[in-house]
Amino acid sequence: MTNTGLSTPEAALDETSEHADRLRRAQAEARRTGVDALLVSPGADLGYLTGYDAPPLERLTCLVLPADGDPRLVVPALEEPAAMASPVAGLGLEVVSWQETEDPYALTVSLLPSGATAVAVDDRMWAVKALALAAAAPHVRQQAAGPVLRELRMRKTPAEVAALREAGAAIDRVHDRMGEWLRPGRTEREVAADIAAGIVAEGHARADFGVVASGPNAASPHAEPSDRTVEPGDVVVVDIGGTTFAGYCSDSTRTYVAGGEPPADFAAYYAVLLEAQHAQCEHVRPGVTAESVDAVGRGIIVAAGYGDRFVHRTGHGIGRETHEEPYVVAGNTLELEPGMAFSVEPGIYLPGRHGARIEDIVAVTDSGGERLNQTSRELRVLDA
Amino acid sequence: MTNTGLSTPEAALDETSEHADRLRRAQAEARRTGVDALLVSPGADLGYLTGYDAPPLERLTCLVLPADGDPRLVVPALEEPAAMASPVAGLGLEVVSWQETEDPYALTVSLLPSGATAVAVDDRMWAVKALALAAAAPHVRQQAAGPVLRELRMRKTPAEVAALREAGAAIDRVHDRMGEWLRPGRTEREVAADIAAGIVAEGHARADFGVVASGPNAASPHAEPSDRTVEPGDVVVVDIGGTTFAGYCSDSTRTYVAGGEPPADFAAYYAVLLEAQHAQCEHVRPGVTAESVDAVGRGIIVAAGYGDRFVHRTGHGIGRETHEEPYVVAGNTLELEPGMAFSVEPGIYLPGRHGARIEDIVAVTDSGGERLNQTSRELRVLDA
Repeated sequence: MTNTGLSTPEAALDETSEHADRLRRAQAEARRTGVDALLVSPGADLGYLTGYDAPPLERLTCLVLPADGDPRLVVPALEEPAAMASPVAGLGLEVVSWQETEDPYALTVSLLPSGATAVAVDDRMWAVKALALAAAAPHVRQQAAGPVLRELRMRKTPAEVAALREAGAAIDRVHDRMGEWLRPGRTEREVAADIAAGIVAEGHARADFGVVASGPNAASPHAEPSDRTVEPGDVVVVDIGGTTFAGYCSDSTRTYVAGGEPPADFAAYYAVLLEAQHAQCEHVRPGVTAESVDAVGRGIIVAAGYGDRFVHRTGHGIGRETHEEPYVVAGNTLELEPGMAFSVEPGIYLPGRHGARIEDIVAVTDSGGERLNQTSRELRVLDA
Repeated sequence: MTNTGLSTPEAALDETSEHADRLRRAQAEARRTGVDALLVSPGADLGYLTGYDAPPLERLTCLVLPADGDPRLVVPALEEPAAMASPVAGLGLEVVSWQETEDPYALTVSLLPSGATAVAVDDRMWAVKALALAAAAPHVRQQAAGPVLRELRMRKTPAEVAALREAGAAIDRVHDRMGEWLRPGRTEREVAADIAAGIVAEGHARADFGVVASGPNAASPHAEPSDRTVEPGDVVVVDIGGTTFAGYCSDSTRTYVAGGEPPADFAAYYAVLLEAQHAQCEHVRPGVTAESVDAVGRGIIVAAGYGDRFVHRTGHGIGRETHEEPYVVAGNTLELEPGMAFSVEPGIYLPGRHGARIEDIVAVTDSGGERLNQTSRELRVLDA
């Protein structure tokens, strides 16, 4: 995927000042946490900070962002034109390129502030690169940059929330079309292939994942689409998402019945799940903790006797990555703030039989929470 | 992408014994290199060793492969059904699962051989995970597993070479259809989108990349498809690849002229490039070094006066990853052996004007090299 960004000169200006502001705030966080520099390789962090969606190559590309001073971007000479075609050029970042037979790790380390003793590497930097940087700077301690950068990334700007809202609307359109694809007699894999094409057709740059878990497979929260043929009356959990051209992710789950009558005991626990997910979304507001959102839903499910059937956390943050901070899980005492966005996706699973999950993305507003997915959460029985 | 594997019981048996053999050989390499255990997270290494194409999640999945003793697979409880639906079950690997609120890093470290002092983590493990493992085992030194595992992965079995041959044929079919998509008046991005769909239609599970670099963009080896409209007579470098359902990658570049006459000075250097690439492919055989393949082509290009226009190495190994060992670059004195497979892709680039690249995948045979791409390397002028 390439970052198409925004197309008007004014928007480009806004984008540049937004990236410049993020770089400054990341430097402030680095100072606050006692880190001399951030080292950021291709991925969501680099895209967030600079707008450069660099390809994930074995050749080192690395932003060197000192706590104080000017950031520099180390790139393979081959990638320099692509880097300069990205928002990096507008940012005025100094680009330092290296040739095929040079050592980019020594080069990167030479750009650290003199006397640096602690650097933070982006969470998803390949270990082989982090270890090579460590070998080139044996007296510099490494830590993960996640705790530094999450302070920025988990607080979305209004433009970022708008991008997530657009992603939510795109995946809603895919769920709206589910009846075209999900029918008895088709395999999960066939349905999943059609959904993947639908995710792209409805406004994503790419499909990222697609769970189509039918019958007993619905009891496995992360089942891969299989060659199982969907049977009439099967409960089918459909958990799908993609990344839009603006670089933001969608993720929504609905539970369907494929033509016919669902299992006799299904309606009872589906109603419990619906109530729990609704209560969780209503609970979201600034000042409550992430773990309290989990607890509200878990309490309802436990009270109904299904506590041991809700086997996962309630949700995960979402933005430029499908899974990012904040996680909605017991033990996370983070207080929610406006601009945070995460999934609320409780599930109930009866091993070997069937299961259900309902998932919306919720953004924290000034006074509550806004669901970014709008398709009906009632059980939807598709025509056979 | 899911690993569909092979479908007959006999093939499954072969696959299981192949994975078991790879695990044993990786253990032998670990012993030989003085590593107490390999720690392997989701990615090409894990797929190669176990057949489990695990999703790249923030939750830790990690194969603990001791130099001596039984391997174990740490998985989030949520992923256990998917792991057991993979070839892992047939391998008889012990699976150790962890619950949402447990610490998987302490668990993983507890499975290391007692007294372990050195572990190798897979090259692409996320830094945040490698650092968490380091924190959980502060007296255990980490190194990259690449040098251990490349001894296995860069020597392909006949079945793996066959899988690469199949991938090569699939991407050849895409190049054969280029005239359907690449025409003056269309943007690079439009052409690239059609090619991506074509890569899937012609037998890949997914499209991995697609360079469509026209006119002056052809002078940038890794240009991203842009909104530039292809003009009559433009030189267009098309470098494309995907991953097949068997999990092996394709990668082939051809240079086209989009309807019309190419620039006057183009034919001269294209002929040099063609000669260089041919000589390199002919040079491939067991016993010659990787760098000598680079040198043979570079010598021809330098002699013709274009030495400073060939700005990258000659190629990269290919298999379960598009870029892997061995790299065909000055300084790599590795002697080629049967079963090694890599790209041979010299290029000549005239900055600001145009450029050309020709790329085939070549597998080393017992006596020479086999090109796995067969489409014509002559300049192809497409009808307007």
